[in-house]
Formats: sequence, C-alpha cells, structure tokens
Amino acid sequence: MWRFLIFISALGGTFVIGMTIVEPGPQYPPTKGAVWPKPQQQITEDTYFIYNPADFNIKVTGQSCLTLTDAITRYSFLARDLHRTARLLSRKIVSSTRKKREQLDDEKLIGNLTELEVDLTSACEEYPYFGMVESYNLTISAKPLLQSTTIWGILRGLETWIQMFYITDDFSEVRINATKIIDYPQYAHRGVLLDTSRHYISVANILKLIDAIAINKMNVLHWHIVDDQSFPYESRSFPDLSRLGAYNKLMIYEVKDINMIIDHAKHRGVRIIPEFDVPGHTRSWGVAFPNILTKCYNGDKVIGLGPMDPTKNTTYKLLHGLISEVQSLFPDRYFHVGGDEVDLDCWKSNPDIVEYMKQNNLTSAAQLHALFMRNVIPLLGNKSLPIVWQEVFDENVPLSPYTIIQVWKGYWQSEIIRILSAGHKVIFSSAWYLDHLKSGGDWVEFYSTNPRKMAAWYDSDIDVSNIVGGEACMWGEVVDDNNVMSRIWPRASAVAEKLWSSETPDHPDNMVYRRLEEHACRMNRYGIKAQPPSGPGFCLGAFS
Amino acid sequence: MWRFLIFISALGGTFVIGMTIVEPGPQYPPTKGAVWPKPQQQITEDTYFIYNPADFNIKVTGQSCLTLTDAITRYSFLARDLHRTARLLSRKIVSSTRKKREQLDDEKLIGNLTELEVDLTSACEEYPYFGMVESYNLTISAKPLLQSTTIWGILRGLETWIQMFYITDDFSEVRINATKIIDYPQYAHRGVLLDTSRHYISVANILKLIDAIAINKMNVLHWHIVDDQSFPYESRSFPDLSRLGAYNKLMIYEVKDINMIIDHAKHRGVRIIPEFDVPGHTRSWGVAFPNILTKCYNGDKVIGLGPMDPTKNTTYKLLHGLISEVQSLFPDRYFHVGGDEVDLDCWKSNPDIVEYMKQNNLTSAAQLHALFMRNVIPLLGNKSLPIVWQEVFDENVPLSPYTIIQVWKGYWQSEIIRILSAGHKVIFSSAWYLDHLKSGGDWVEFYSTNPRKMAAWYDSDIDVSNIVGGEACMWGEVVDDNNVMSRIWPRASAVAEKLWSSETPDHPDNMVYRRLEEHACRMNRYGIKAQPPSGPGFCLGAFS
Repeated sequence: MWRFLIFISALGGTFVIGMTIVEPGPQYPPTKGAVWPKPQQQITEDTYFIYNPADFNIKVTGQSCLTLTDAITRYSFLARDLHRTARLLSRKIVSSTRKKREQLDDEKLIGNLTELEVDLTSACEEYPYFGMVESYNLTISAKPLLQSTTIWGILRGLETWIQMFYITDDFSEVRINATKIIDYPQYAHRGVLLDTSRHYISVANILKLIDAIAINKMNVLHWHIVDDQSFPYESRSFPDLSRLGAYNKLMIYEVKDINMIIDHAKHRGVRIIPEFDVPGHTRSWGVAFPNILTKCYNGDKVIGLGPMDPTKNTTYKLLHGLISEVQSLFPDRYFHVGGDEVDLDCWKSNPDIVEYMKQNNLTSAAQLHALFMRNVIPLLGNKSLPIVWQEVFDENVPLSPYTIIQVWKGYWQSEIIRILSAGHKVIFSSAWYLDHLKSGGDWVEFYSTNPRKMAAWYDSDIDVSNIVGGEACMWGEVVDDNNVMSRIWPRASAVAEKLWSSETPDHPDNMVYRRLEEHACRMNRYGIKAQPPSGPGFCLGAFS
Repeated sequence: MWRFLIFISALGGTFVIGMTIVEPGPQYPPTKGAVWPKPQQQITEDTYFIYNPADFNIKVTGQSCLTLTDAITRYSFLARDLHRTARLLSRKIVSSTRKKREQLDDEKLIGNLTELEVDLTSACEEYPYFGMVESYNLTISAKPLLQSTTIWGILRGLETWIQMFYITDDFSEVRINATKIIDYPQYAHRGVLLDTSRHYISVANILKLIDAIAINKMNVLHWHIVDDQSFPYESRSFPDLSRLGAYNKLMIYEVKDINMIIDHAKHRGVRIIPEFDVPGHTRSWGVAFPNILTKCYNGDKVIGLGPMDPTKNTTYKLLHGLISEVQSLFPDRYFHVGGDEVDLDCWKSNPDIVEYMKQNNLTSAAQLHALFMRNVIPLLGNKSLPIVWQEVFDENVPLSPYTIIQVWKGYWQSEIIRILSAGHKVIFSSAWYLDHLKSGGDWVEFYSTNPRKMAAWYDSDIDVSNIVGGEACMWGEVVDDNNVMSRIWPRASAVAEKLWSSETPDHPDNMVYRRLEEHACRMNRYGIKAQPPSGPGFCLGAFS
C-alpha cells in the first residue's frame, strides 16, 4: 500500500519493473508556513524574521471593536504558544551539537519581527452575513501590516498571519518569511453542514467545529439541528418538542447554548444558519405533535407517520410560531427550510389528503409539496430569506430570486444549469458528503470538484457567478462526539480551499498534499482532532 | 438514508410502495445487560437483583494473586461507577413523577446482590499464553458464583459479570438478572494488530487499546512495531536504529514503556506479540544501517534501498542481536518475523545478489526469500516459536509444525486449505483489515466471515481446528492518536464475537445490531472512543 511504481525505459525497448521503493519518513513532508486555503496572490521571499513574544506586539492603528481585540488576544496567544512549543520541543528532542550547526544559517535573516500593524479602515460590523467583504492585504516586511476595510477581512488576515509562522528544523526559532499577500474569497458562501439529530453533538464540539471552520477560512455553519430521529432544539413556545422529541434531557440545545454558539461564531466571522427541515424529515416533531404529521396507510390500516400534513392549519400555526422564535434567536439573514426527500407515497396513501388534492385540483403529490412550500416560505416574512434543498426548485414552487437552492443530488451539472437559468443562486454540496466513506469520500475527490468550472464546462453560455458557494455535509448517522471532528477534518479542508482559492489545480498535486499535511498538523496543534490526510507521517503538535 | 422500504401485497395483484417510514429514536435500541461477545451457554431469567455498592462485596474463596486482586479492584470500581452514573442521570434527566411510576415494577425483584464469590481453583499463571484456558462458569443467583480453573477464565468472567449490569429506564436502579453462564472461547488466538510505524501511537492509547481488547474478550495485541516509515523501538544493543530511524525522539517506545504495556496487558489476560517484519518493510532500519539493505538498481544506477540483503553476514548478525534483546523483553512464546511483500525485483536488479544466486544455484528470487527466512527463523532459538505472513509458506520455506502462518491475502480459502494440509496452524486476517473503509470495511462484513466454517465449506474433509484464531489489522497509514480508537472500535468487536462465540448468525441479525449498540456505548462509558456502529442513536455513557 502507498507505494509507487517506477517505470523504467531502457535500451532496446520499454519495460516496466514493479519495484517498490519506499522512503523512510512521512509520505508527504509537510510544508513550513504554507497558508491553507491558498491566498489569491502571494509573494514569499526566502528572507525571514524571527518571532520572539518578549519583543513583539500587535498595534491597532485603525478602527477597533470587541471582535478585533478578542481576535488579537487569541492570535497573540497562538503565536506565543507556538514559540513555547518550539522551546519545549527543542529541549526534548535536540542535542546541543545539532542546535549549534543550524543556527549558522542566517544570511537570510532580516531581524526580529517586533510588530504587526492592524489597520481596519471601516467600523466593525456586528454579525457576519452573506456577501460580506473578507478581502485583506498582508505584508510581512520591515513594517508588517495587515489591512482590510472590514473586520471580516482582518479576521481572515490574522488567520493567514498565524499560519505563516513556522518552527525551524532544529526547533531553535519561530520564523516568518518576508511576504506580500493580497487575498479574497472566490465564493461568498463556504460552509460545513452539521446534523445534530441522528447523533447529538456536544456544545463543546460545536464550538471546536466553529474554530476549525474559521481556521479553514470558511464562514458558515449550516446547523441541521433537527430531523426524524430527534429534536434537540429547545423551544420556549413549544417546549414539548424537545421534552418529548429529543433523545433525552441532556441532549438538548438550550437558548443559552445557542447564544453561546452564535456569539463564538460571530467573533470568528462565521454565520450560523439554522435549518428546520420541512415537511419531510420531521418524525421527531410528531412525538409531541402527532397531529401535524400525515398518517401513512396500507389499505385501511395506518402503518406509521410520514411527512407533515400540508392540509391542516395546525401544521402552519406551529411552524409560524416556531419560525418566529428561531428568527429571534439566530441573527443570520438566511433560514433553511429544507424541503428534501418528502415521502409523497405516504401522502398518496392517506384518504383525507387524496380528498383534499381532488378538491384543490392537485393532480400529483409533487404539487402538494409545492403547495406546502408555497405556504411555508411566506412564514419567514421579511426577516429571513429562504434556503431550500433542490427538490423545492424541482417541483416548481414559485421562488423569489433571493432564494438560494442547495444542490445535493447526482447529475448536478444539469440541475445547476436549470437553477441558474431560472435566476436563482446555488449552494453546491453534491460531491462533498462527509458521511460518504466509500466512492467519492476521499479529500482528493473532494478537491477535484470545482462547481463553477464544471458547470461552465457543461454549458459555456451560462453565468456561473450565481453559484455562490458550497458546503461539506456531515450527516449524523455515522458520527457522534467520538469521531465527528476527525471525520470532518481535514477532509472538509479540501472543500474550503476549492471555495476560497481561485487558482487551484484540478487535481491535487504534490504541493497540495504537502500543504495539507502541514495544515492537518496545525489543526491538531489547535486541539482539533484532524485525522491523517494522506498516509504515513507524524505531527508534533499533539506533543506540545 | 437508513430507511427501509415496505413491500405491500394487496388485492388483485402485488405492488410495491417505496414508502419511507422512519421512527424517531435510535435505529437499533440498545439491549440491556447483553454480553459481548455472546457467551456459549447462557440462561437468563427475567427475575433480577438490585446492585448497591454500599451493600456489596466480592469474596475470594479460592486461590489468589496480584492479577486477581487488581482485577477485583478494577471491576468493583466499574460497578460502583455505573451506580454513580445512574444516580447522576436520574438527577439530571428524570422528573420525580416518572421515577415513582417505574419503581412499582418489582414482582420480579429477588433482592439485593450482596456478594460475588470468586473461586479460582488453581494457582495463578503469570503471563497469558497461546492455548491458555479461558473458560469460566458464572451464576447470578441467591449465591452468585464465578468459577474457573485459571486466572484467565476469572478475568473473562469478571468482564461478563460487569457487562450484565444495566441501568433501568428511569435511572433509579442498577440491576442484574438471574443468570447461568457456561463460557469458553471458540478460537485460542483472538487479536488486534496495531501498526506503530506509519504513525506513532502514544503509550496511553496503546494501554487503552489493551483495555478494549480485554473488554472484547480478545487476548492478543500483535504489535507491528516497526516498518519502512519509522523505527520507534528503542534498542539497547543498537540505539542508532531508533535514534536515526524513528520519526523523532518523542516518538519512541523505550524499555520502560514496553514493560508498562506488557504489565498492563498481562493483568488483563492479553498477550503482546512483537513483530519485527523482515526482510521487506525494513527501510527505516537502513537509516542507521544502510549496509544491511539491498541496493536496488536501474541498469548501472542505484535508485534506492530495498529489502534486507540476504547475502550478508552483517544482516544476520544484527538480526540475531536484536531478536535476542526483544526476546528478553517480551515474555510471549511467539515472535512474529513477518516475511510479507518482499521486493524480489530489487534483489533481481542487484548484480551482487544475482551473482550470489548463481553461485548458490538459486533459480528464482523467491528461493532467495526462502533462504533468508530459513536463516532467520533459527535465530529465534528455543526461546520463541515463529509466526510468519503467508508468503513465507507460499515460498516453500521449510517450517516446523509449531510455526503459525498468518493469512492476509485474498483467495484465502484455498490458501488456508493448503496450509492446514501441510500441518500448520493458521491465524486469519484476510477479511478483517480495519484500514479498509471501502468495500469490506464495515463491521457487518467483518461479522459475516467465519474462517473455520468457510474453510470447511470449501473443503469438507479438512480438519479446521488448526485455524487457531484471527486478528483484526489496524495498519497505520490512515490512523494516528486522533482517530485510531474510533477506527478500531466497535468494528473489531465484530471480529471478537466471531472468534469467541460458536453460535453466531452467518450475518448479523437485528439482535446483533442491538447488542453492538449497547456494547459500543459501554466502551464509551469506559473511556474508549468507539464510533457509532449502525446509524442514528445515542449513548449516555459520555455524559456520566
């Protein structure tokens, strides 16, 4: 395994030897101070500065706010911690002879990095939002400067800054190379979907996930909070939903948890988009409110509960109340109302619903789904804009141009073309399902998908700029607190780079492998349990 | 996903509705107090005892020793901890009304469990070994009794005992049902292979892995300690092997680590079998000792280092010294000398080796591999018996009948028949590779493989009793400390049950799914980060 064949062409003909030359050490030696995702423009010199926390500070010269000072505290700590790690490793690993030898290499040394000037040129915004400006310029030179017009750009720039530090091979120093970066994202919406219904994920792990999202310069946590299996959202208006529908009283997100999550996220430039998926995937709602669900029949016999009952006023009343409450909690402008995988056969089996369809001249259950969504989306009022799964578009629900359609099924190129042609925005997920382990579940395959490029290739006339982003989806069947972080990271990092960076190779080259090796170890150092990306290797982060 | 179709046959014909009825809650409700792996004979009544630590003790009436008293301390703690967990959950989860309602169910109550008599009828043995007796009888009745002729049987019985406890739905009580168990393993050798070369695994995680091996009534940790990528074993005779060949100074197993691991394992009835894989998979040896490896040629040019050089005395001299040292550290009677995946093409490319083959009338490189193994195995002397990978058998190395062959390749049925026919013992691994995630990597597939049964089906005349066991193999390319435990467990539990229990279904039935759900949660409670086995569910263990 993990071996490579050597193909040899020799005198008099071509032949192949299946020789397996394996080198000792990591399969992909990690880079040193390479940024993930790759900045749009970066010029790095081989001259460098030495970082010493005793002789360094971050100076704010422009606007400031709590988000900025909080971020500076955080990143200052991380830089100090890297320095501490280097000293620790030096003491534990290196013999003194070796230390002396490597310190001679200093004709490239410019001097100490004594300062970083942070210049935010406009006032802070409180919450991150769709389309926010995240661009920044970062120069590491005699006068190091991070500049942006927005706090979000500053946050992204600080992340880049910390990633550029590296520890020398002999652990004697923390360095940063002279560099100029101009950076901005390619896509506006870059997220991870987390499903907390199939398994409950602890608040602590959600906070860690948000940290990791920010480290990867993503900006959305799409919180698929409830589903068929459990209803962990604690509603003040309908407390029975979670009292009866959650797995148990300990596996509930209370208002204080949600506020903490939103607060933690906004300080990192991460939006929290709630999803309450209707009318399908709602079985857990029915533990408290069985009447809002459809009875599915086999002949005369009720065999279970299916999707929400679209013919009943009580359904919409409850939804209206719940949506208002959720809107008051979640500040994001977008609200995901789901709409995927509705069990139309259950609707068709129910005599009352069949009767209703007749009376309302609905000739297919798909039309009933459309009717339901047409009733639900207005419940968002002016406060939220809808995101829906692609079925809602496929079933011809009239949608405002502000609606974003999330594409998740196969044959996605043609679907995207149809959606773009209809004037809607697209979030892409089809190729980025983190619960898939078999075909298509490897980060290399994630990395090899570029939705705009592939859609343009499919139809060169279409304007692909309305593909506004994508999400790596962590459905919860296969993960709980034990393995959720290692299942997401660094696999979702491949998606993060595809969505941020414009100039990525179609398939990862050797340098991408090496950069991801460093990046996964960096996440480990920050306490994020990213798994090994690509075969043999080691990360010293865990030891510091 | 995870949905099931309902097939309905109705009046006038057959038709199929693809209705997707999903129930809320876990997909497989965990059992309560079901033992994993399944005991050979178990009669469980629905009458039960209540466990209260204040009113309970374990009484040793037979032989005793440190391994026994240590185990009793451990299992007493686990029982107390379960009781503490129940009280904690009761306080956090249950309303008082519900508590009262469920406590009325007591016509099945026999009384308090005040004692467990532990009767070990022979003196303790110090180290577990191949073929040790692990059978035990356990009765939970008015006079609860655990009896075995060996300390190993007592250890297995205590594990069964603790697994039989369960917390009531209202968390008010810890109960154990009246039960009679007669139990013994089907296979003698039941192990997990851990590769610590591709990624270093911390000593703490190895100790946890040993705990998990014992919880699953397995009895072997096959420690694939070194390989091409790194040499983490610290040798006193050849300190340069790890000084230069390990990833770094922190990623080394010192003598004190190894002693701790062996000591921890023996107290749990787990053997530690060291593997030093030769002559292939040895690239890391060559960082310190390049001369013992073969130079691979492309024409006149050396292109890298390949397997050990079988023509040099220095190779055998180093091996002799190292093997003696390892033998003095590891008390197990078996020593795994590897022998898999030798790069014969490298040997064939080397002019000196080609010359040597000529002079020694070796007509193929496979014969050279045979010669090498024939030289190495005697280095074990009388102290160890060899285990080898199947290639060593395939290449007709003369092997003593005590040699165990580990089968790992495909087409294993015919291979096993050949090995058994030659009078050797077999350890089976082909279907149980934990690093495989794609086809064949699911626990359900692991569970559906029964080596003796399948070999007998292939050749009904063969005596399959020499298939002495199997191992689930955790090769290290894809795991490090971040994900190794969740990757192994509960997937290796499927292997554990197949190897222990005689009467398992050919494919897991609903009850197996439910029992594994409880078992994975039990491991979580013990601090072993087993991942969710089979879809939606929850485990309260992590909260206690």
